Amino acid sequence: MKKIRAAIVGYGNIGKFVLDALMQAPDFEVAGIVRRNPADVPAELAGFKVVADTLELENVDVAILCTPTREVEKHASVLLSKGINTVDSFDIHTSIVDLRRNLDAIAKEHGTVAIISAGWDPGSDSIVRALMQAAAPKGITYTNFGPGMSMGHTVAVKSKPGVKNALSMTIPLGTGIHRRMVYVEVEEGHKIEDIAKAVKEDPYFASDETHVFAVPSVDDIKDMGHGVNMVRKGVSGITQNQRFEFNMSINNPALTAQILVGVARASMLQRPGAYTMIEIPVIDMLHGDREELVRHLV
Amino acid sequence: MKKIRAAIVGYGNIGKFVLDALMQAPDFEVAGIVRRNPADVPAELAGFKVVADTLELENVDVAILCTPTREVEKHASVLLSKGINTVDSFDIHTSIVDLRRNLDAIAKEHGTVAIISAGWDPGSDSIVRALMQAAAPKGITYTNFGPGMSMGHTVAVKSKPGVKNALSMTIPLGTGIHRRMVYVEVEEGHKIEDIAKAVKEDPYFASDETHVFAVPSVDDIKDMGHGVNMVRKGVSGITQNQRFEFNMSINNPALTAQILVGVARASMLQRPGAYTMIEIPVIDMLHGDREELVRHLV
Repeated sequence: MKKIRAAIVGYGNIGKFVLDALMQAPDFEVAGIVRRNPADVPAELAGFKVVADTLELENVDVAILCTPTREVEKHASVLLSKGINTVDSFDIHTSIVDLRRNLDAIAKEHGTVAIISAGWDPGSDSIVRALMQAAAPKGITYTNFGPGMSMGHTVAVKSKPGVKNALSMTIPLGTGIHRRMVYVEVEEGHKIEDIAKAVKEDPYFASDETHVFAVPSVDDIKDMGHGVNMVRKGVSGITQNQRFEFNMSINNPALTAQILVGVARASMLQRPGAYTMIEIPVIDMLHGDREELVRHLV
Repeated sequence: MKKIRAAIVGYGNIGKFVLDALMQAPDFEVAGIVRRNPADVPAELAGFKVVADTLELENVDVAILCTPTREVEKHASVLLSKGINTVDSFDIHTSIVDLRRNLDAIAKEHGTVAIISAGWDPGSDSIVRALMQAAAPKGITYTNFGPGMSMGHTVAVKSKPGVKNALSMTIPLGTGIHRRMVYVEVEEGHKIEDIAKAVKEDPYFASDETHVFAVPSVDDIKDMGHGVNMVRKGVSGITQNQRFEFNMSINNPALTAQILVGVARASMLQRPGAYTMIEIPVIDMLHGDREELVRHLV
């Protein structure tokens, strides 16, 4: 059986875990890894092709984009138009519809498939939210994140004057309300009080309860665990009080990477176009005989 | 916008809740209700066509089968070959693959769509199980049912000599192990001890911890609430200990009916063939503009 040839585009945190997941997937082979500096080859990449551009690799079926989120559209646009499927974990919620529309046109023109915003939120959480809404069309779903590190909030703190290193933890308080716990390594000559004020005025933090602390070492307190709790109470037909809950406690980049490999597999089965995860059948993410999967999972 | 015309086939417990759900769905209209005795028209059906055969109704797009599970294949085979999509909540887990294969051939021949085994288990639980497996391909998923009434087990108890009425409750003990709490109205001249022995020897109960009690009235203790707890601990890539959990506490027939209406909607969007719920995109079950759903849910 012909294996799916995948390129890993970007070899940061997510890219490393994608390589792990691809090595565990019986139906994939790694076409190569794409890095800004292809001469930078760490020991674990010794057996792989490392190049500066995906188009240098041979017979790539799907490119797994592990670049910063703002570079996704640029990479996907080029690759889709060159006959290569793309998957990404684009996570700017307000721009997903636009990205989908732009990539859909390119993919349809060139007979390729893009699966966008595929991680855990947006991603697998989106499927659970859609399913809960299908089960009880009227009602409210609350998505409670954490406890875990927020990448976006951490970057916002790092941009403040006097911050050497930072960590912003998201603490769920229920009903979609979150507390921000911010840990900062303060540069010499700066005061934690000034940094705290700047952080609390930042739009990222302004509407949340925020606490800022000085710590001697951010690295000592950082872990990559994260979690989510989603709850919906709603109405099926005219029957009130239907309750649904989804919880997970996970290593963040490991889960994102595993989902990316799943949608890379699914990309081979869709008609040309761009899709979010709620628009593809869940079974398409799984390896194995289709009837066996139905027998085992349904 | 043209509405989807749905027939309700069978007007028992599920059928009644399907009517509720259809009346709440802006994109559906009720083509009619199919009953064995079409002269039996309760007050709430006064405004509807009630007939003995689905084919007596006009322009039916999709038939929602609310018959006993063993009659599903017979009804679906006929309707699919007459150009009508079907959806059902067929729940004999070991026969789902065969039903799917048989209806798939008929549906493809006649350009129709069947969505089978669509309720909550099999059904929405199946989607969560598949998603959990996609998120952590190695690991074990435990499905814990209840507390709630088991239809199959209740029917098995009712078949024993000396049983006037019965209720079998499923109590989850974790890791997929269940306790059966059986409540029986005993007929005059029979002993609860004999009934308890017969129940415990029944293959439905033989491998579970089972307790049998005599009660004066089964109706007084019956409720239609049910629940599920699904847990998976598994491996994403090579990262161990990824944990996922799904819980719900619901009115059983109301949820089954709502899901049936969702897949009836989805049936209009699939290519000809037979599908289980893990084989259709979740978004297809939802009413509304596609981009708006993506914006809101992804």
